[in-house]
Amino acid sequence: MTYQPGTTGVVVQNIERAEQSVIDGLAECGVATVHEAQGRKGLLASYMRPIYTGARVAGSAVTILAPPMDNWMIHVAIEQLQEGDMMVLGTLSPSDAGYFGDLLATSAMARGCRGLVIDGGVRDLKDLTEMGFPVWSKAVGAQGTIKETLGSVNVPVICADAHVNPGDVIVADDDGVCVVRREEAAEVLEKARKREANEEAKRAKFREGELGLDIYDMRGRLAEKGLKYV
Amino acid sequence: MTYQPGTTGVVVQNIERAEQSVIDGLAECGVATVHEAQGRKGLLASYMRPIYTGARVAGSAVTILAPPMDNWMIHVAIEQLQEGDMMVLGTLSPSDAGYFGDLLATSAMARGCRGLVIDGGVRDLKDLTEMGFPVWSKAVGAQGTIKETLGSVNVPVICADAHVNPGDVIVADDDGVCVVRREEAAEVLEKARKREANEEAKRAKFREGELGLDIYDMRGRLAEKGLKYV
Amino acid sequence: MTYQPGTTGVVVQNIERAEQSVIDGLAECGVATVHEAQGRKGLLASYMRPIYTGARVAGSAVTILAPPMDNWMIHVAIEQLQEGDMMVLGTLSPSDAGYFGDLLATSAMARGCRGLVIDGGVRDLKDLTEMGFPVWSKAVGAQGTIKETLGSVNVPVICADAHVNPGDVIVADDDGVCVVRREEAAEVLEKARKREANEEAKRAKFREGELGLDIYDMRGRLAEKGLKYV
Amino acid sequence: MTYQPGTTGVVVQNIERAEQSVIDGLAECGVATVHEAQGRKGLLASYMRPIYTGARVAGSAVTILAPPMDNWMIHVAIEQLQEGDMMVLGTLSPSDAGYFGDLLATSAMARGCRGLVIDGGVRDLKDLTEMGFPVWSKAVGAQGTIKETLGSVNVPVICADAHVNPGDVIVADDDGVCVVRREEAAEVLEKARKREANEEAKRAKFREGELGLDIYDMRGRLAEKGLKYV
Amino acid sequence: MTYQPGTTGVVVQNIERAEQSVIDGLAECGVATVHEAQGRKGLLASYMRPIYTGARVAGSAVTILAPPMDNWMIHVAIEQLQEGDMMVLGTLSPSDAGYFGDLLATSAMARGCRGLVIDGGVRDLKDLTEMGFPVWSKAVGAQGTIKETLGSVNVPVICADAHVNPGDVIVADDDGVCVVRREEAAEVLEKARKREANEEAKRAKFREGELGLDIYDMRGRLAEKGLKYV
Amino acid sequence: MTYQPGTTGVVVQNIERAEQSVIDGLAECGVATVHEAQGRKGLLASYMRPIYTGARVAGSAVTILAPPMDNWMIHVAIEQLQEGDMMVLGTLSPSDAGYFGDLLATSAMARGCRGLVIDGGVRDLKDLTEMGFPVWSKAVGAQGTIKETLGSVNVPVICADAHVNPGDVIVADDDGVCVVRREEAAEVLEKARKREANEEAKRAKFREGELGLDIYDMRGRLAEKGLKYV
Repeated sequence: MTYQPGTTGVVVQNIERAEQSVIDGLAECGVATVHEAQGRKGLLASYMRPIYTGARVAGSAVTILAPPMDNWMIHVAIEQLQEGDMMVLGTLSPSDAGYFGDLLATSAMARGCRGLVIDGGVRDLKDLTEMGFPVWSKAVGAQGTIKETLGSVNVPVICADAHVNPGDVIVADDDGVCVVRREEAAEVLEKARKREANEEAKRAKFREGELGLDIYDMRGRLAEKGLKYV
Repeated sequence: MTYQPGTTGVVVQNIERAEQSVIDGLAECGVATVHEAQGRKGLLASYMRPIYTGARVAGSAVTILAPPMDNWMIHVAIEQLQEGDMMVLGTLSPSDAGYFGDLLATSAMARGCRGLVIDGGVRDLKDLTEMGFPVWSKAVGAQGTIKETLGSVNVPVICADAHVNPGDVIVADDDGVCVVRREEAAEVLEKARKREANEEAKRAKFREGELGLDIYDMRGRLAEKGLKYV
Repeated sequence: MTYQPGTTGVVVQNIERAEQSVIDGLAECGVATVHEAQGRKGLLASYMRPIYTGARVAGSAVTILAPPMDNWMIHVAIEQLQEGDMMVLGTLSPSDAGYFGDLLATSAMARGCRGLVIDGGVRDLKDLTEMGFPVWSKAVGAQGTIKETLGSVNVPVICADAHVNPGDVIVADDDGVCVVRREEAAEVLEKARKREANEEAKRAKFREGELGLDIYDMRGRLAEKGLKYV
Repeated sequence: MTYQPGTTGVVVQNIERAEQSVIDGLAECGVATVHEAQGRKGLLASYMRPIYTGARVAGSAVTILAPPMDNWMIHVAIEQLQEGDMMVLGTLSPSDAGYFGDLLATSAMARGCRGLVIDGGVRDLKDLTEMGFPVWSKAVGAQGTIKETLGSVNVPVICADAHVNPGDVIVADDDGVCVVRREEAAEVLEKARKREANEEAKRAKFREGELGLDIYDMRGRLAEKGLKYV
Repeated sequence: MTYQPGTTGVVVQNIERAEQSVIDGLAECGVATVHEAQGRKGLLASYMRPIYTGARVAGSAVTILAPPMDNWMIHVAIEQLQEGDMMVLGTLSPSDAGYFGDLLATSAMARGCRGLVIDGGVRDLKDLTEMGFPVWSKAVGAQGTIKETLGSVNVPVICADAHVNPGDVIVADDDGVCVVRREEAAEVLEKARKREANEEAKRAKFREGELGLDIYDMRGRLAEKGLKYV
Repeated sequence: MTYQPGTTGVVVQNIERAEQSVIDGLAECGVATVHEAQGRKGLLASYMRPIYTGARVAGSAVTILAPPMDNWMIHVAIEQLQEGDMMVLGTLSPSDAGYFGDLLATSAMARGCRGLVIDGGVRDLKDLTEMGFPVWSKAVGAQGTIKETLGSVNVPVICADAHVNPGDVIVADDDGVCVVRREEAAEVLEKARKREANEEAKRAKFREGELGLDIYDMRGRLAEKGLKYV
């Protein structure tokens, strides 16, 4: 059964995931390449920034729908985590409060979680950085949250303008966050690999000083469009 | 005598400070814990960000009320600094100009100042980072300021939506900035210590894989609210 | 011949540049000092932030006027680069798409380019950081761009609210970006050097605990304006 | 068959709609009441503002998924409009360009369309206002768009952080925009009507000077929580 | 007794107010004139915008300190309102939820309240506009609030970066909002009146085509500063 | 002689203007049409909003370069105004202060000025609206300014990301502001007129229910791109 985005009060326990090797491959490719390989779709809004630089991860989305300023559902979600998952939190209405900190990170890491993507705030940055638990968030904020109202776990959510289904593959690095549909993950990886191979060849030429104008054979089309050199 | 927030033309020379051991204790606890321990109040607006990551400090507030684009009062404030103080600057009307740079930091450090919290802009980031002088600011900006108009030193100020009295304790780290009333500092530290002790025990359990659902005994209340596992 | 800002379809091949020693001198001085030395003008908008901290560079501007979401002209511009140049990209209408990534950086570095200032988005941050190619941008974004429409290279452009002529000197560091007119570069460097020498002397005094109030002889003027110590 | 949010290249021609009387009833209730009646969900982001004040409308969503800066799909969508529909446009990546103006509004009005909700820009405001065609948008912008790339019509879209299915009921007024699931529309209207009746009785009491403290019997609970009158 | 800004759980029942004739006089002068007359202080942040244009009011501040997303204290405050008062709401942590709508406005108007200044969101704009109840707010938002947590009434609050004491005079019009200390209200009115008289004479001259350059005798000083006519 | 953008201390007295009939024609066409007619260039940033709706004007630019928070140069500029001019103000560094109010508007109207475009703040909105003096601005703000530092009049300026030469034609309405180069004004008008004539014919067809898909003959190209109707 499929739930409507926005459904509250439900925890879906068995979700399908992409193959781990596919997920790991997508992590290696990174956000920009994966985004291109799947036809330039799936990017989360660019306000989602990593709390520290240099992380590049991918995982199966365990989705969390949270009421504003309420982080109760994160505890519920952690029980559903498997090795290699990432948590993706969307809210019922926007808030920059600090839903997530080092205690929850400790718990999530103990379950094998690779990171968090949260359309809200995060705190305990110093600890999270030292622990090496990467978070992409809309805000940094110490403001505490409550545990009063139900949301859901593993229903479709909207996170930073993107639609994420439970089990979709999340790729995240310094460029932001990209979601890949579970069903398309293997095919996207294949395209991303080709793109990378192609880019490696180009990179070598660029390094030697060849110009994109020549490598991509652009001069004719530029002249046709009327570009004048003066 | 107490001054109204916004009073200009006054330098209050003798301000009361909290005990140094209390201040140092609050620094160790950090912003998120202190904010929780005092009942979730005192946070400055989340647009206040550190110029470099990893600093965690506390100090007695030497407050500065500055006219827009005018940093004259910072010079006046530096004379009032004691070992262990932090400067807190609010403006009479908003500006992102660069009120503070490496020369002023050199002067403040020579007086034992531990950092600056400024509802405006800062410049010379490369130097400040190398010197290890932490600043939390609204903006980074090289735009120069002038020295034309009086503000005040050590009157109550509004800084990033928070009310700061001279002598209040300022706690700042990667999560932002929190102000603790001087009179409440000892009590807040005590509560923060308890919170930390409590969290340490929880952290150990989380590390071993225990769930928040069990540690906090949440399952019953979740079921009562109607959470369904499917 | 001079082109109007906003002219499309033109590549100006021979631009005048400032002397390399002057450019290198300006890099050493940094943005805040150069901005002050030239009378507090030339700063780009403060939303221009570096993708990593610690870089401090200067170069002759090779300007790029780009249509929104179209990075074709960057390829054209790279052919015009000489050792010691920086690229400065303004757009015909705003966009946060990722115009520039590691392949273009590889190509630009092969031509001796020292960095990019772009009033738009950049991607492949992890690679650019590892390569040591500094970029100051309005946004980070993985969103791909196209190669459909002509802009220009080496015409005057508006970048982050500043007017940049081809051949102007661009100075950039953690404080932001500043443009110096080519014709004024030598004179600005001289003034910046004087300012630095002057500051060095002051810095020594500050380090020893002398106060700005005394160094700059401010006490009289403060009293005149009515400052009261209480 | 159901399409994934984000699917491009598809026009779904037959969509189910709620009953017209239910839709009209929801329009009368307005955004705030409908939002409350359905359990405080369904609000679009508050950056969606009307181009003129005073409009209050509802309609069945004909959804449009548009590439950035490309308004081709609006022409395709207009053919799918029925009397009483509203258009809802989400984009594949954000842009503030002016996707919609008076010509398209003339065409849409001729098909009985009641308004547009667009997560992008709109232009020809003076004409649209005179025509009485209401638009809720993220931006006002004259920047032209192109007709190059396919999106979709009547697939699920994300518009201003909300998930909208084709045929869902859109309610919009000066307070913003709210989406009601088609299947829940009748039930939500019933609850909204009850809420309104209840509020009308309260409004009369308030008008006569009765206090909410008494009408809602709040004094006891406030005292219990510790509120002190001094 | 005076309370610290931020104190929760207290309702101060007897506050001092400025004379009604002074308040009414300040309303006639408007925000820009009053702000100038009191030495350019007291402006609330410029993000505070009226929900409809053309209102110009003043009143004694009944202050409300509200927890985020909780409008309970507004009910408590309404009991404290007297004819000629304005409500001023600051929050313990920021939220754009819709704290205030037409029912509360009906209640407040029945008590003689002249308007609301709220560092948060407001809803029911269509009704409030028709009722003629002016509101200056940070946001428009239909999102509902709760009644769970105590704040305070008539303690000092921070509202949109300004410090407001209960009983201070609030002046508001299309230019924004300005606060005048109760103790200074009469003196500020006198200065504002003088300013207005002075401006009226100038306005007549301007209307006849005289230039500010001559009316204010600026030509000499401009020449002195080096202004060149070419 | 031509001045560099950013030159201070200069007033250029004799500027060339476009023909009045051309300017008036551009006003009739409005911003969106003019922007399209000149090849989609010349738009000022979309943050420039009118203080009241419904105005549609054009005029020759009398440009003002103003230091931050200093409106002295507006007085200087007013002397340079001729019947049919508009003032365009750019700043040396950004500020939202209220540079312009009803007195200056009275003076400018007496000289035949048709409006103001200001990359800063404006105040006295109630008066300006009643006087019918249209202003497009970045901000509304009552904050006062000073008269201390020289800028320039009638040198090229950057206003809201656009380059404006003295004598260029400014077109402004509810959609924003567009600048047309003086030399191109007649040609742009001609194109705009053609565009309007063309649109009028289309509008009639749209009114009768014809579809853009047929009027613009789009069906073939959509099918070619792969659009599927289901």
